[in-house]
Amino acid sequence: MSKKVAVIMGSDSDFPTVKSALTELKKYGVGFECRVMSAHRTPSDAAEFADNAKANGFGAIICAAGMAAHLAGVIAGHTTLPVIGIPMKSAALEGMDALLATVMMPPGVPVATVGINGAKNAAILAVQMLAISDDELAAKLSAEKKAMAEGVRAKDTALQAEIAAL
Amino acid sequence: MSKKVAVIMGSDSDFPTVKSALTELKKYGVGFECRVMSAHRTPSDAAEFADNAKANGFGAIICAAGMAAHLAGVIAGHTTLPVIGIPMKSAALEGMDALLATVMMPPGVPVATVGINGAKNAAILAVQMLAISDDELAAKLSAEKKAMAEGVRAKDTALQAEIAAL
Amino acid sequence: MSKKVAVIMGSDSDFPTVKSALTELKKYGVGFECRVMSAHRTPSDAAEFADNAKANGFGAIICAAGMAAHLAGVIAGHTTLPVIGIPMKSAALEGMDALLATVMMPPGVPVATVGINGAKNAAILAVQMLAISDDELAAKLSAEKKAMAEGVRAKDTALQAEIAAL
Amino acid sequence: MSKKVAVIMGSDSDFPTVKSALTELKKYGVGFECRVMSAHRTPSDAAEFADNAKANGFGAIICAAGMAAHLAGVIAGHTTLPVIGIPMKSAALEGMDALLATVMMPPGVPVATVGINGAKNAAILAVQMLAISDDELAAKLSAEKKAMAEGVRAKDTALQAEIAAL
Amino acid sequence: MSKKVAVIMGSDSDFPTVKSALTELKKYGVGFECRVMSAHRTPSDAAEFADNAKANGFGAIICAAGMAAHLAGVIAGHTTLPVIGIPMKSAALEGMDALLATVMMPPGVPVATVGINGAKNAAILAVQMLAISDDELAAKLSAEKKAMAEGVRAKDTALQAEIAAL
Amino acid sequence: MSKKVAVIMGSDSDFPTVKSALTELKKYGVGFECRVMSAHRTPSDAAEFADNAKANGFGAIICAAGMAAHLAGVIAGHTTLPVIGIPMKSAALEGMDALLATVMMPPGVPVATVGINGAKNAAILAVQMLAISDDELAAKLSAEKKAMAEGVRAKDTALQAEIAAL
Amino acid sequence: MSKKVAVIMGSDSDFPTVKSALTELKKYGVGFECRVMSAHRTPSDAAEFADNAKANGFGAIICAAGMAAHLAGVIAGHTTLPVIGIPMKSAALEGMDALLATVMMPPGVPVATVGINGAKNAAILAVQMLAISDDELAAKLSAEKKAMAEGVRAKDTALQAEIAAL
Amino acid sequence: MSKKVAVIMGSDSDFPTVKSALTELKKYGVGFECRVMSAHRTPSDAAEFADNAKANGFGAIICAAGMAAHLAGVIAGHTTLPVIGIPMKSAALEGMDALLATVMMPPGVPVATVGINGAKNAAILAVQMLAISDDELAAKLSAEKKAMAEGVRAKDTALQAEIAAL
Repeated sequence: MSKKVAVIMGSDSDFPTVKSALTELKKYGVGFECRVMSAHRTPSDAAEFADNAKANGFGAIICAAGMAAHLAGVIAGHTTLPVIGIPMKSAALEGMDALLATVMMPPGVPVATVGINGAKNAAILAVQMLAISDDELAAKLSAEKKAMAEGVRAKDTALQAEIAAL
Repeated sequence: MSKKVAVIMGSDSDFPTVKSALTELKKYGVGFECRVMSAHRTPSDAAEFADNAKANGFGAIICAAGMAAHLAGVIAGHTTLPVIGIPMKSAALEGMDALLATVMMPPGVPVATVGINGAKNAAILAVQMLAISDDELAAKLSAEKKAMAEGVRAKDTALQAEIAAL
Repeated sequence: MSKKVAVIMGSDSDFPTVKSALTELKKYGVGFECRVMSAHRTPSDAAEFADNAKANGFGAIICAAGMAAHLAGVIAGHTTLPVIGIPMKSAALEGMDALLATVMMPPGVPVATVGINGAKNAAILAVQMLAISDDELAAKLSAEKKAMAEGVRAKDTALQAEIAAL
Repeated sequence: MSKKVAVIMGSDSDFPTVKSALTELKKYGVGFECRVMSAHRTPSDAAEFADNAKANGFGAIICAAGMAAHLAGVIAGHTTLPVIGIPMKSAALEGMDALLATVMMPPGVPVATVGINGAKNAAILAVQMLAISDDELAAKLSAEKKAMAEGVRAKDTALQAEIAAL
Repeated sequence: MSKKVAVIMGSDSDFPTVKSALTELKKYGVGFECRVMSAHRTPSDAAEFADNAKANGFGAIICAAGMAAHLAGVIAGHTTLPVIGIPMKSAALEGMDALLATVMMPPGVPVATVGINGAKNAAILAVQMLAISDDELAAKLSAEKKAMAEGVRAKDTALQAEIAAL
Repeated sequence: MSKKVAVIMGSDSDFPTVKSALTELKKYGVGFECRVMSAHRTPSDAAEFADNAKANGFGAIICAAGMAAHLAGVIAGHTTLPVIGIPMKSAALEGMDALLATVMMPPGVPVATVGINGAKNAAILAVQMLAISDDELAAKLSAEKKAMAEGVRAKDTALQAEIAAL
Repeated sequence: MSKKVAVIMGSDSDFPTVKSALTELKKYGVGFECRVMSAHRTPSDAAEFADNAKANGFGAIICAAGMAAHLAGVIAGHTTLPVIGIPMKSAALEGMDALLATVMMPPGVPVATVGINGAKNAAILAVQMLAISDDELAAKLSAEKKAMAEGVRAKDTALQAEIAAL
Repeated sequence: MSKKVAVIMGSDSDFPTVKSALTELKKYGVGFECRVMSAHRTPSDAAEFADNAKANGFGAIICAAGMAAHLAGVIAGHTTLPVIGIPMKSAALEGMDALLATVMMPPGVPVATVGINGAKNAAILAVQMLAISDDELAAKLSAEKKAMAEGVRAKDTALQAEIAAL
């Protein structure tokens, strides 16, 4: 049976951004659970979730958090599943705080960090991980990559009229 | 009986810097325990230590960690004792990563952050906290503050000869 | 008798943010005074306040200031009480200026720095300090910590419906 | 047959750091190829390698590059395999340039970024990805995680003598 | 026959800023093509465009991209024409990510970087390059420089009334 | 009688850098006093010095401090003399902390900030201030400016041989 | 006769911010001229203005510029008068570009830099410089400093009602 | 007759880095002059050089400067030739000051900025500009680009033995 992806956010205020990760996972037909759990406010819940994630059928865990973003690191401390971190932009410092707090992990406990607010990319990365041993998923990724290229080409074509009219 | 101060570092490579916190605590006659515990490598040990710290007679917890410095935040998630964070300078980014990962805590779970590599100040801050209800300790802090001022004045005097000789 | 907490801001324009510190202190039943005093515009008032703060029954001092935020450091130079600094975000540099000007204190004179605009956390930290020797306050902190965790769990539950409907 | 991991560096001057990724992969018995290929100096080689990486039995690609570190992004543009980026610290800016150039990828083309010079973590992350569908590898990761925790505990014990002697 | 200038943007969302480069090129009567091509989504199109740019009559290539802005570097890897990079400001980090990802190129493959969102300057720089061997274009640049100076002087004069009325 | 310049440093460890300010003042024949006084360790001394500086014949005050560099701001709070701040580079953050803590003063209390470790420039700036009403000093500044230009020209000439030999 | 202050801005778009410098100078009865001159667009005008500023009765020159803010440095290269630089915040980088481009002057050519958008402080600094040899102006500065302190105290008093009502 | 390239540095201390630009120009057989001229210490020399550079047979001007690096911008204000800026790393801030002071030019006056200390790239960029209308030079650039690729491939081959021996 296929592995699921866990999507955890540190605060429900992250949901408007995190939602695009869920949409992306649905597009690929990848099962997921989405949870609000905080490294600082419900640390035991987060630890327990991570301790059991592999046994519960998860293949990868996406964590979104802002400011001193410890969620991904804390989860990574409790599992050997690959953990993907989304640094969230919050009210100050343009997301630099969350980026550094997510990516600069010490040797032994990596977090696969994507760009600030990069929820869609976190989902694609999770799909890519699952696709290592799932050819059907890999084929969907290839198709999507081609569609994305066609999308760029279509925009290029569409822009020519606007440019000609300058 | 007097409260002790816990001093935790994420890696024993932090000890050369952290040592000055211990020296400072000794100067004030404050009891302490010093431990190596990692938010990412021994998260359960850290959580358990923090869960029991108050019951075990600690009054404050000092945490030193570098890079994506989660130690102080993780400890703070497991205790209502005041947690003091020392952001450690490591091989890249001049300690800015550890500073932001330590100080930018979300509402509800503060970390009292001192300057980068500020181990001595972390200790003094812990003593100041204990001294709120300990007049003897408060008197020692006052005496030390006066001595520190005298030290500056002595250096000012000593420098005058060097300046005169320019 | 219980110690009070002083809350000082460098400008009354900081009040909308600082207010949440006062609300938080009230929640815990901790007495406070809130003042506008400037390290640069009324330095003698600030020095005098700090010189007498301990004798006047204060147990900790919270200082909020922006830009070249000297208020916490200046107060800390005049007292052995623990001083908590709130770096305020102002019109430029996203609060990085106030953060560095507050946290990077020289050895001997610590400031317990919280995150940018972290007024609520400053109050909780002050309560944690007072609670070292006040079991009733400590019990309130524990209760609040549990309530905070329940709040996260409630949000987690509430979100599931929204996720299911995606 | 097991998937291999490709390790690509933009310059052979990166090898002293990248070497620890290879050592780590060997520890887990994961096959790898290690290549010098530049996004700017041999872009066609890099593109061709990435285009064929999946067919050639690779499961993940690790890319190490410094300064305007485009290697991981360029590789990611040519494959649906998960791409792991190691931002290398070089002569100026403390590795911040490579970090931002690696992690801030546009939607659709993620790079799983680890910390600056984080070669060991890149390897572990690659192993974690392969282990999603390889229980033997997953067991090795768990064993290694336990060993790492024991290592921290051993250092904690070893330090107590030194602390007692202060 | 005169060389044209290619203007490439990584996303059509960059067009509102990039447009001012086109307006500027038109002012100087320099021919141009403007395209949407992505270093990550249509890397082969970009490579092919750059490989043939010189043969297709281009004298310089302007590339606008944001975030981990690889477009200019990728194009520069495929041509010996001078490549001008415009780092675009996007949702986080104030354009610093794009600036570093554009300017910090390794030895051998330069990108002539202009300021963040500096589309107009990119066009002028391209014109200056073409004008090295085109005296007519050089004369237009001189005339424009004089007009720009007169513009500043006119604003200086206009402001005097407003100042007098203060 | 001519005004003197006060040169204050927060720590005697700043003296090796600050010394060049004294040398420069001597070159112009401007009288000075050089003191060690700390905004945090001897705040009352600093305040008293500043309160009396004008009456004591000083025309400007140079303050050198590192980290959360409050010295210049604190002095400026106690005098209407122009205060010149030298942000000192210390062990972390490359002097950015001292720069922001010195320059970002709130409205009403300016500090004339020079570059990081810019002791020589601080002295020249003080001389320029005194020279506003001292034609002899102004003449010396002009002469020095011409000598500086000649120095650059001499280096230009000297370099030509080395270049020719490449 | 009293010296005037020159206020130069690199673009008339800086005027809304610069205006507060003029208001402040008027408050002190200090004469001024305010000009738009650009280091890059009208460099000869700027050089000529600076060359003659002392002879034309100016005592100090305030320069406001944003981005790669060269105006103050260029003016300082052409005069021995003290030059005050105001780094202007513009569309990207929060004014950090202008701050560094203004303050980090090489030895020999200082610029007295105030905070980002610090027009009022630039004016006060200029007045402080003129007041070194002008007791009447010095008295006005002292009076203003006292008024400013009273203003803070008034705000402190005014806030107490609002606090009491929380 | 072929155009020359001017290479100007703000201080002879920049020569060890700038030298690689000269070596590179020699490799391509491009004539050059190399000068020490300062935007702040010999501004008139710099202005005069730039005013006459086109008439004196220069096709492009390379400017290397550190700190508040104004040299490239000042030169660009006095010529319509393309100006290439090399931000030099100096004692503080890792070259970020020079980078921002060089690249963030206002509309109308571009500087083609290369990476920090990027002297070799500045030379290649200048050659690329001259090669727009010089097919022989363009052929040399192509040959060099191929050689550079072969160099990377040779290093790739050479590394395989070292990797096999791990």
